[in-house]
Amino acid sequence: MNIDSFIETLALGVARERILSSDAARAPYECDGLTMFRVRPKLVVLPETTKEVSHVLKTCKAAGVPVVARGAGTGLSGGATPHADGVLLVMAKFNRIVAVDPLARTARVEPGVRNLAISEAVAPLGLYYAPDPSSQIACSIGGNIAENSGGVHCLKYGLTVHNVLAVTVALDDGEIVTFGSDAPDSPGLDLLALIIGSEGLLAIVLEVTVRLLPKPEETKVVMASFDDIEKAGAAVSAIIARGIIPAGLEMMDKPALAAVEDFVKAGYPLDAEALLLCEVDGSVDEVADELAKVEQVLRDGGATELRIARDDAERLLFWKGRKSAFPAVGRISPDYYCMDGTIPRKHLAKVLKRMAEMSTEYGLRCANVFHAGDGNLHPLILFDANVPGELERAEAFGAAILELSVEVGGTITGEHGVGLEKIDQMCAQFSRAELAQFHALKAAFDETGILNPGKAVPTLNRCAEFGHLHVHHGELPHPELERF
Amino acid sequence: MNIDSFIETLALGVARERILSSDAARAPYECDGLTMFRVRPKLVVLPETTKEVSHVLKTCKAAGVPVVARGAGTGLSGGATPHADGVLLVMAKFNRIVAVDPLARTARVEPGVRNLAISEAVAPLGLYYAPDPSSQIACSIGGNIAENSGGVHCLKYGLTVHNVLAVTVALDDGEIVTFGSDAPDSPGLDLLALIIGSEGLLAIVLEVTVRLLPKPEETKVVMASFDDIEKAGAAVSAIIARGIIPAGLEMMDKPALAAVEDFVKAGYPLDAEALLLCEVDGSVDEVADELAKVEQVLRDGGATELRIARDDAERLLFWKGRKSAFPAVGRISPDYYCMDGTIPRKHLAKVLKRMAEMSTEYGLRCANVFHAGDGNLHPLILFDANVPGELERAEAFGAAILELSVEVGGTITGEHGVGLEKIDQMCAQFSRAELAQFHALKAAFDETGILNPGKAVPTLNRCAEFGHLHVHHGELPHPELERF
Repeated sequence: MNIDSFIETLALGVARERILSSDAARAPYECDGLTMFRVRPKLVVLPETTKEVSHVLKTCKAAGVPVVARGAGTGLSGGATPHADGVLLVMAKFNRIVAVDPLARTARVEPGVRNLAISEAVAPLGLYYAPDPSSQIACSIGGNIAENSGGVHCLKYGLTVHNVLAVTVALDDGEIVTFGSDAPDSPGLDLLALIIGSEGLLAIVLEVTVRLLPKPEETKVVMASFDDIEKAGAAVSAIIARGIIPAGLEMMDKPALAAVEDFVKAGYPLDAEALLLCEVDGSVDEVADELAKVEQVLRDGGATELRIARDDAERLLFWKGRKSAFPAVGRISPDYYCMDGTIPRKHLAKVLKRMAEMSTEYGLRCANVFHAGDGNLHPLILFDANVPGELERAEAFGAAILELSVEVGGTITGEHGVGLEKIDQMCAQFSRAELAQFHALKAAFDETGILNPGKAVPTLNRCAEFGHLHVHHGELPHPELERF
Repeated sequence: MNIDSFIETLALGVARERILSSDAARAPYECDGLTMFRVRPKLVVLPETTKEVSHVLKTCKAAGVPVVARGAGTGLSGGATPHADGVLLVMAKFNRIVAVDPLARTARVEPGVRNLAISEAVAPLGLYYAPDPSSQIACSIGGNIAENSGGVHCLKYGLTVHNVLAVTVALDDGEIVTFGSDAPDSPGLDLLALIIGSEGLLAIVLEVTVRLLPKPEETKVVMASFDDIEKAGAAVSAIIARGIIPAGLEMMDKPALAAVEDFVKAGYPLDAEALLLCEVDGSVDEVADELAKVEQVLRDGGATELRIARDDAERLLFWKGRKSAFPAVGRISPDYYCMDGTIPRKHLAKVLKRMAEMSTEYGLRCANVFHAGDGNLHPLILFDANVPGELERAEAFGAAILELSVEVGGTITGEHGVGLEKIDQMCAQFSRAELAQFHALKAAFDETGILNPGKAVPTLNRCAEFGHLHVHHGELPHPELERF
């Protein structure tokens, strides 16, 4: 259709100044946090009301124009990579905390509210919102819903799906519906859980009711050094096997430690092969009890040094190192590629060893920073895109890590989503019948396929081609996309 | 189609002696735990293998014959009420615990395994399966999946959906697929959560991977008496507001106490207007700490008597009373009707008061036994079906309770499911657009509608008729069904 008349139609329901069509205005929206993939959207629209969102969807559906929703643009799998012929629906103006109910411990928020802003707003009530992705200072709750985000504390407190009670969404035809309720369970099919983690394929989130938790009375973190990464992996399993579910249980390897310490000065030991950070929270007595047990398990597991943060300032510094790992690695390598495979905890030691071997095979350094407690790996593959062949080697190394994850019974993504990045690995993860069921579900929400097309669920044809294109010849998985 | 040739076709893939067609053989399967609804199925089939289930589904789909799956038949909403023209697929022979992984803390079990049998099997490893419906001695894990069952401990440990990692299911065409994985999250759409609580509408469960938990070091229960039911309701909110999440937090009112004490001799105080049972678990220190806080809150909330079970035997006796409430009430009334509305905790006191008024209005006694901590009410309406009009009044009273639940922001079912029983109340719970989305989802799994037709999700026509039929004229919601 003619772009001018399409804009005219959009402008019947959305203020003209919030429909961006110039090159300059669209340029900042070319990519999300996965900057490898860049596509300039045909139009950027910034709605302010539910009615405007409905109007945009109706207009796009009538014209067969793709719609890609974008929150804060911090996603790491290209879920918000724009569509060249589509509208990028930027939800940034939906940024109000609508209501807080301290007794029911819930908050109703719009999707553009930043993750951390929720906890900040309810802190005076002694409450907080538990899921805390490392990007929490910037990422939005709408994006968290799309990706079912986790974070350092999801081992104990669950992923986004465990902390959201209801969502109000716009369907592809602009209809507004609510799934879930303030009660613990909701009758009917669990469309709330289906929406969470659906990567913008099913609906556009307009409002979210999140569960809030009381801030624990006490929080302590212990830092344990190991002279061998496999010992650290085994210690993680041993803590869990002891019946303890820490609030956080994170691991960093030597390359990650070096990068982080240089950047943050968190006081990390530079001679350690691996470092564990284990946080326990609860009442004062409970924390004392759990901490003693954790220390014992770590000592028995061969930790060479144990340090307990002496106060809250030091505790936050320990975590600041961990949470700054990505930018820290960015300082020591021109480019890095962050993976997100998840494996059964018992295979941690084996997988870490195999990744070290692969690092040699592919000739690329790899820094490991990850949510050890729930087996969610975030290997950072270091490369230089200006050196011919390094990007391709980084991608092949990444794909090999994901396939290794599936091989040991894990999955290709823990919390970053599939997006564009891992769409081929979905073919390794799921059977034809399972993928067909995903497509049937997608069609039940969005028959004409206008919502975030080409993401998260590969076509069966794509999977048929995948083995040939990607594995046997090592070609690029997304040749149609412009590269940085 | 001709029944004999249909049986012939079934017998090509299922041993003939496990296809029951005689009146005598089919009679025991006429109802599930909601005995108000009785329908004799055309055929009962007891498959033993995945291949047999596939064959039954393929055969039924080809012939357009409805299939209703049945676990242990303990469901309370008629989810397994047979279809007069259909096959009742009894999954009782799928009763093996396939594998237990103590390190990953998971068990793979077949759907016919009893809920309690899982905990019994892994007890020697110091583990247990957390969701514990009152029927846990009999109900099967397949049924738990269908209804997203909870139980006394779901306040702290979650519903079935929070304790299941993966399901293998047969689709309507007999295809076998697996949703979920051993890892904490799985990529793609969350079809695992969608299957859980889908009441047999989407697929037939063949295998379940459940999460196991370490048995807590210590467990204590405190029993608190109140001279006013509203005070007890307020104390529940106060405990949660204090930042405590008890392992269980249950309430019984005076009529329930009288019935239970007479039956079980649990040592309940007969002069109390309401009784709270609050269980805390964890390490020895943690339990001591939480128990002290709970006692303080209960005293401040006006408890007239506090008793802590002196040992595990007494603790189990306290719980035995609670878990026997349904049969105990069965002894004092010819019939009872158990409701399952869920409300936001903050409205507990108000809703309890309104229910007492309704009891007078409808002229029927009502005993309250419920999961107070998560606002899940189980009012037991006492009636005598042989007294003309009492059944109808009981149903009208029940419907009014559910509508009250929706009115205060709750839902029509906490853990028993919608089934046949609450299908009209779904019209009060959801909008037309939301119900249409449920139908679209159902069609994405089962286009021809052979799986458990007529349950859980009302047709839009039915909802259009609902107001007229049920609310304004007080007629029976299911005149087409034979009554007991």
